[in-house]
Amino acid sequence: MKDITEMTIPTYADVEAAHARIAPHIHRTPVLTSSYFNALTGAELFFKCENFQKAGAFKVRGASNAVFGLSDEMAAKGVATHSSGNHALSLSYAAGRRGIPCHVVMPRTAPQAKKDAVRGYGGIITECEPSTTSREAVFAEVEAATGAEFVHPYNDPRVIAGQATCSKELMEQVDGLDAVIAPIGGGGMVSGTCLTLSNIAPHVEIYAAEPEQADDAYRSFKAGHIIADDAPNTIADGLKVPLKELTWHFVSNHVTDILTASEEEIVEAMKLTWKRMKIVIEPSCAVPLATILKNRDIFAGKRVGVIITGGNVDLDALPWVKN
Amino acid sequence: MKDITEMTIPTYADVEAAHARIAPHIHRTPVLTSSYFNALTGAELFFKCENFQKAGAFKVRGASNAVFGLSDEMAAKGVATHSSGNHALSLSYAAGRRGIPCHVVMPRTAPQAKKDAVRGYGGIITECEPSTTSREAVFAEVEAATGAEFVHPYNDPRVIAGQATCSKELMEQVDGLDAVIAPIGGGGMVSGTCLTLSNIAPHVEIYAAEPEQADDAYRSFKAGHIIADDAPNTIADGLKVPLKELTWHFVSNHVTDILTASEEEIVEAMKLTWKRMKIVIEPSCAVPLATILKNRDIFAGKRVGVIITGGNVDLDALPWVKN
Repeated sequence: MKDITEMTIPTYADVEAAHARIAPHIHRTPVLTSSYFNALTGAELFFKCENFQKAGAFKVRGASNAVFGLSDEMAAKGVATHSSGNHALSLSYAAGRRGIPCHVVMPRTAPQAKKDAVRGYGGIITECEPSTTSREAVFAEVEAATGAEFVHPYNDPRVIAGQATCSKELMEQVDGLDAVIAPIGGGGMVSGTCLTLSNIAPHVEIYAAEPEQADDAYRSFKAGHIIADDAPNTIADGLKVPLKELTWHFVSNHVTDILTASEEEIVEAMKLTWKRMKIVIEPSCAVPLATILKNRDIFAGKRVGVIITGGNVDLDALPWVKN
Repeated sequence: MKDITEMTIPTYADVEAAHARIAPHIHRTPVLTSSYFNALTGAELFFKCENFQKAGAFKVRGASNAVFGLSDEMAAKGVATHSSGNHALSLSYAAGRRGIPCHVVMPRTAPQAKKDAVRGYGGIITECEPSTTSREAVFAEVEAATGAEFVHPYNDPRVIAGQATCSKELMEQVDGLDAVIAPIGGGGMVSGTCLTLSNIAPHVEIYAAEPEQADDAYRSFKAGHIIADDAPNTIADGLKVPLKELTWHFVSNHVTDILTASEEEIVEAMKLTWKRMKIVIEPSCAVPLATILKNRDIFAGKRVGVIITGGNVDLDALPWVKN
């Protein structure tokens, strides 16, 4: 059996293997349409609803692929990551399904709700100070003490192959797509989309959507090399992280273009989606719709897959509600 | 052709005719499940998601059946109703699909958002003072001036036969249900549920769920005759209206029991549904889940259909957000 922990570029065979491996642990999420948004954009939009996914986001695909791809011997020591977002939830969920420990290093300053959510899925939290130095030191301690397998949130071939199953399903569910658009942060979902489409539907355009206030992927794409920002600030909190070498490989080779949206446009698109489609989506996954709404010339007349990446929102702190 | 405007008790043949008539104009809404809520309740719940319905609620079923069942001659004069809620939206939507006018009498004090929504679907609003006397007088004027056909929000056999298509679909989508539960206000949806189940699945229990603060149906059911309250106050604003003769017929003959929930329990169930299922639901359709959560003894071990009646919520005035 191939050792999928090597930092190699995943292939479409890895995606097919991933899909078979994770199928018992994930939802095949539905694709929704909206005559309202079709009329508004002039495009035919197909929303792949990963907000209905296990643990509330697509991240469970990559996390499950990593967890269930481990040998029994490696699995026994558990998995570990540093994240305070959906990857931590997803890895905890997947580890729980396999019955192995999941260690999560989180800043002690992270919101209590996020800590509770990780613990709710069985994750074991070790707190660090809110600095990169502390996080790396604490993570190294956890790794040394447990021997747990590190699963990076996106710069990991197992994770990218797992995320790639999302657009594999989308292509099985919808015929004749002209384009697919997904939000971009670290680039895990976009890389997975590139991996799938470049293999099974290379004529389909791939767009990435990014907040203006965290547009490092956009600037990287235009510059031709990775640009990483220090501490971007955006409501789309899943999209603050920079590209890394593996995701840059896919983005630089296969993405058609990267489009950006302002904070106001993101919140407007998010609220409009809740209002008209009656689904709860995160700010991060409102970014693609926001960019479609402002780039009618690109998308009108096309059949466009829109990846709704997740639905984990703090209902007590909605961006359009003044506190 | 049978005149379906007579105030007669609709039959299951009317339901089948309604379904064929309205199919081009409505969504066959999906049924969602939630392992979280199954674990929490001990029951197996099947959520029939009418929040994804056209115009955002099940009411479009009855409204479309009334509109598309009219002769061309009657239809030419349009339809009319008094409502500031989902029935007004739905009737406006259905009339728009047929290309006929829809007159809606609404209190001038109704929220601007509700007036805008009705106009957004093409409804023609005539304002009245916020009193029953004024509403009836203004409505009589509109009826006389236009000759439009009055479509009552629920006490109308065409409307009940239309709402009955919802549980017809549910029975086609889910095997082996033991019970179905729906919210009760005027009783249109519950009557439709009774009409369908008493004909095609008479062994299935039918529960109605009502806010404690607007429990006139509950008290009617226990007393054996209609009790109408003057002005009940509940967050579940779709459920304030009283039973009428036609809906009382179905409720008194076919409902297994009526269960109630407090305002706090309704808001809690609503928020938990948004959080865990990632769907936007109205307070009114959180009432069934609220009663299931507090009546575990009734529902545990059963396969239960839960009618999610609608998703039209003012996102700027959420009940758990202090303004």
